[in-house]
Amino acid sequence: MRITALAGGIGGARFLRGLRAALTPEDRITVIGNTGDDIHLYGLKVCPDLDTVMYTLGGGIHEEQGWGRTDETWSVKEEMKAYGVGPEWFGLGDRDFATHIVRTQMLAAGYPLSAVTEALCDRWQPGVRLLPMSDDRVETHVRITDADGPRVVHFQEYWVRLHAAVEAEAIVAVGAESAKPAPGVLEAIAEADLVLLPPSNPVVSIGTILTVPGIREAVAAATAPVVGLSPIVGGAPVRGMADKVLAAVGVETSAAAVARHYGARRDGGLLDGWLVDTSDAAAVDEVATAGIACRAVPLLMSSVEATAEMARAALALAAEVGK
Amino acid sequence: MRITALAGGIGGARFLRGLRAALTPEDRITVIGNTGDDIHLYGLKVCPDLDTVMYTLGGGIHEEQGWGRTDETWSVKEEMKAYGVGPEWFGLGDRDFATHIVRTQMLAAGYPLSAVTEALCDRWQPGVRLLPMSDDRVETHVRITDADGPRVVHFQEYWVRLHAAVEAEAIVAVGAESAKPAPGVLEAIAEADLVLLPPSNPVVSIGTILTVPGIREAVAAATAPVVGLSPIVGGAPVRGMADKVLAAVGVETSAAAVARHYGARRDGGLLDGWLVDTSDAAAVDEVATAGIACRAVPLLMSSVEATAEMARAALALAAEVGK
Repeated sequence: MRITALAGGIGGARFLRGLRAALTPEDRITVIGNTGDDIHLYGLKVCPDLDTVMYTLGGGIHEEQGWGRTDETWSVKEEMKAYGVGPEWFGLGDRDFATHIVRTQMLAAGYPLSAVTEALCDRWQPGVRLLPMSDDRVETHVRITDADGPRVVHFQEYWVRLHAAVEAEAIVAVGAESAKPAPGVLEAIAEADLVLLPPSNPVVSIGTILTVPGIREAVAAATAPVVGLSPIVGGAPVRGMADKVLAAVGVETSAAAVARHYGARRDGGLLDGWLVDTSDAAAVDEVATAGIACRAVPLLMSSVEATAEMARAALALAAEVGK
Repeated sequence: MRITALAGGIGGARFLRGLRAALTPEDRITVIGNTGDDIHLYGLKVCPDLDTVMYTLGGGIHEEQGWGRTDETWSVKEEMKAYGVGPEWFGLGDRDFATHIVRTQMLAAGYPLSAVTEALCDRWQPGVRLLPMSDDRVETHVRITDADGPRVVHFQEYWVRLHAAVEAEAIVAVGAESAKPAPGVLEAIAEADLVLLPPSNPVVSIGTILTVPGIREAVAAATAPVVGLSPIVGGAPVRGMADKVLAAVGVETSAAAVARHYGARRDGGLLDGWLVDTSDAAAVDEVATAGIACRAVPLLMSSVEATAEMARAALALAAEVGK
């Protein structure tokens, strides 16, 4: 079975780990990773979502934190502070720095990000084929108004520095309109037996991937069923601050509203099936009415096995809607 | 008093620390640092000699090792090995990496190396004005013949990887002929009350600085006395492998031969005065005969105070020849 999943960072990576556990070694998973939260720091190209997927599936993730490396040290960051070189608000450990140094060196040598990602994964052996959504630079920016007046900040500044505490007035994936899907991305969607939208952020993770021209169209036109899992449980994001960015695109923070935001395939949208948490069982009928097959199952990724069970539910729903 | 010193790495840095201790806070030291052993590693610009001077005078040096940082950690290098990215033979610790990351970022932003060095020194406060010999890229390469046949290797590969164990057939400062002295270098030599050649390597440290067009001429034409200290004691380098590179330029490994290599100012050379170690007292007459005032004093930099005493001897000799 060939499965293609779109994925952001922590939520996506944890789901993928469960998915892999639910499958056999013969199954093939391709992950199309969000690169909209990429940022240049200290002259280095940092790809937080790709790395979170790579580290999580490769066994190098800081488990409790959800991002960054296990057994991390922080000497470089200490020195940066001593040099007065920021930003201080972004956490890059020494081991993580090494990844960014290798990536930046390869990019400077002319390799596209997809080739660099493949080379990094040669070490981590994540058990999936990890593709960046695009080899072109796309960076998500957020329009806000705070004490400094109206301004546009990089997504990481909004998310990590400001903790999404101010209203996101608009979210723009800078560079997306002229970006091309990375090699293999459209093929992975077209040739998949199943396309999955994990419980990643529907706006700044999966939403950003879908802004790359051709990707949304490919998902909408996929011959395989497309099944998603709600990142909203009981009216709030399970993790992160998805509610802040959902508001910016005029979407209510509810499992049903996110499903309608993705839309039903029969109406030109993306979804054939949608899983909501058991606590949102009341939303099942509403989603079904919108033309999306919906089931309520436990959606808390409290362990790899619990997550694998979510993946099995997605596979079961796909089998049902794919008939 | 304004003193300008040319300097390489460990030997030069330790001498400068003694020199600073021998002077008053009103005295001004300008150091013209060798950048011929600079190397690009992992896409980062590494300046080993500038950093050794900066760390040594700024209190950040690994004292026993002579290079690199105290309290160093090695996570980045471990990760590089895990990624299969070399070279493994060059020791860059995490704290050191931070310096190279900041430097590379500033260079990429368009700052010349001299401005970058000044910015880095803002943190370290080395108590001297540290200038790179040039803002232009100059890298020393060594021609060797080994099991891989005749080939040219970067100086660092020759020195650090091969431990200078094969014969250096030729030494070339690539880029030197079209390099310009960094801003302030020629002025610092012309306006000095004393020019010092510390016991740095006469070929690949001071020799390389002198290959930058204009610098040798400026030293030869300086109004101030020029005094040097022998890096060769008892027919061998005090530290390092200067004998290997002296042979490549046809110079015997002796305190007198190095003095003759620099040459007497009366003959268009560089030196007014030369200090040799007490164990080389027999060389004093030979050097004097070559037109260079020479004294034998203890030249082992066993402590800052012992080194300060060497500096005082150099100041005394300068006062004598400057009359």
